Amino acid sequence: MKLTIIGTGLIGGSIALKLREKHFVDCVYGVDQNEQHLVEAKELGIIDEGSTLENAIQNSDLIILAIPVDGSRKLLPTILDLVNDNQTVMDVGSTKGGIVKGVENHPNRNRFVAFHPMWGTENSGPKSAISDSFAGRAGVICDQEDSAPDALKMVEEVAETLGMNLLYMDAEGHDIHTAYISHISHITSYALANTVLEKEREEDTIFQLASSGFSSTVRLAKSHPEMWVPIFRQNKENVLDVLNEHITQLRKFKSALEKDNYEYLEELIRNANKIRGILR
Amino acid sequence: MKLTIIGTGLIGGSIALKLREKHFVDCVYGVDQNEQHLVEAKELGIIDEGSTLENAIQNSDLIILAIPVDGSRKLLPTILDLVNDNQTVMDVGSTKGGIVKGVENHPNRNRFVAFHPMWGTENSGPKSAISDSFAGRAGVICDQEDSAPDALKMVEEVAETLGMNLLYMDAEGHDIHTAYISHISHITSYALANTVLEKEREEDTIFQLASSGFSSTVRLAKSHPEMWVPIFRQNKENVLDVLNEHITQLRKFKSALEKDNYEYLEELIRNANKIRGILR
Repeated sequence: MKLTIIGTGLIGGSIALKLREKHFVDCVYGVDQNEQHLVEAKELGIIDEGSTLENAIQNSDLIILAIPVDGSRKLLPTILDLVNDNQTVMDVGSTKGGIVKGVENHPNRNRFVAFHPMWGTENSGPKSAISDSFAGRAGVICDQEDSAPDALKMVEEVAETLGMNLLYMDAEGHDIHTAYISHISHITSYALANTVLEKEREEDTIFQLASSGFSSTVRLAKSHPEMWVPIFRQNKENVLDVLNEHITQLRKFKSALEKDNYEYLEELIRNANKIRGILR
Repeated sequence: MKLTIIGTGLIGGSIALKLREKHFVDCVYGVDQNEQHLVEAKELGIIDEGSTLENAIQNSDLIILAIPVDGSRKLLPTILDLVNDNQTVMDVGSTKGGIVKGVENHPNRNRFVAFHPMWGTENSGPKSAISDSFAGRAGVICDQEDSAPDALKMVEEVAETLGMNLLYMDAEGHDIHTAYISHISHITSYALANTVLEKEREEDTIFQLASSGFSSTVRLAKSHPEMWVPIFRQNKENVLDVLNEHITQLRKFKSALEKDNYEYLEELIRNANKIRGILR
């Protein structure tokens, strides 16, 4: 089987590495605006060759769209214009409402499967790709009823080959859940980094004192704006809703401290501890 | 050498395990209000035997105070009443201003060394103790000039045996820095957990969708109030100062989104990305 990955970075690269390793595909075309990424992706064994979009699509059974969500949303209609009923297109974006809405009336809509693998790191580019990234993680398929059965089956096989646990949701529900579970974590991490950078002018002290707790909460603040600004833009309403709730929750801690109300502070912490029962 | 650990939990237990393993001590007395913890600590090889406070201190060269910071602050004067010039007392608390102030006029003040090992997990109790916890982490000694040279040397040797990188600070500076680097991370993590628990009533969905990013930012929210309420109370002014700054930083993200000002959003993220240059 022949594969095109559009975007040869962290997610596209990691998927291609695993699908090759498992012999799910035997030829991978890479499409990337960044010529240097194509060179690196070939050196790293992620792709067989760089290609134009048209040539790659014409020669592939499966096309994986793995660029920032605004780019995917813009490019998907063009890709669907180019495919036939034997080809499958999937994306890997962190927001889903916009991309499915953008092709809802496209005659080839049913060749597209909206997919979100719940894995990522703060790194980017082909060099950050890791073959074993996805095993045991959630892979979400959205609006499955709008995809042709054979296209859906293809994406399910991709997810299984990656070792992911499949979930099914509608695109709207997906965007609400990911605002809580993923997008808000990034905003709090960015804001925490900015707080520390604002308050702690001695960079050496940050470096020397940083405990494992600090490092793990701030890790996401290393994530690039090229990926995250489009996610926040496309999921604006849900993210704002959760962000408002988060500020409200922080104000409760502030109020408990200001009023020396340590019973209330303890209650807030005990409530947060309930996450123990939910996350391992 | 004989050691007393007061509090046989995560920190006290981990230190004792390592000091035994390295033959820095050959006998460890455990003092703990929780009888079950003494039984567990003996079974796990953390202590040789449980003891009363008086008996343990009378028979030890080194006394390590490893209970929540309010308890340490209250107990330290009593311990200093009981020690002589051949004995050393150290604490491991996350706040320092209160504990040193509480003994500033004590005749045995110079037998005490204020120490903060910058390591922890969200777990507690003897079973959570890990011998190799401290290697490569920062160990902060505060107000070193108020400790006798031999007591200081003893604690430096403990820190070296644990493999820690020693730093020296005054207690006031320590409490300001740890508010930025450690305490605020815990508040944001608690608030994030409460946000998700408030918004996402389907616990199954949290569990299934939780990405590695979410898990790492919410991990600290599992930390117990018994440890953290006293820390926030003792470092109230510094924590409130940083919390106010953090809410201000979050409001900038909110404002950028509300006004569709994505250039500003990108600027906020690029600023946060500077943490890349500071943390590995």
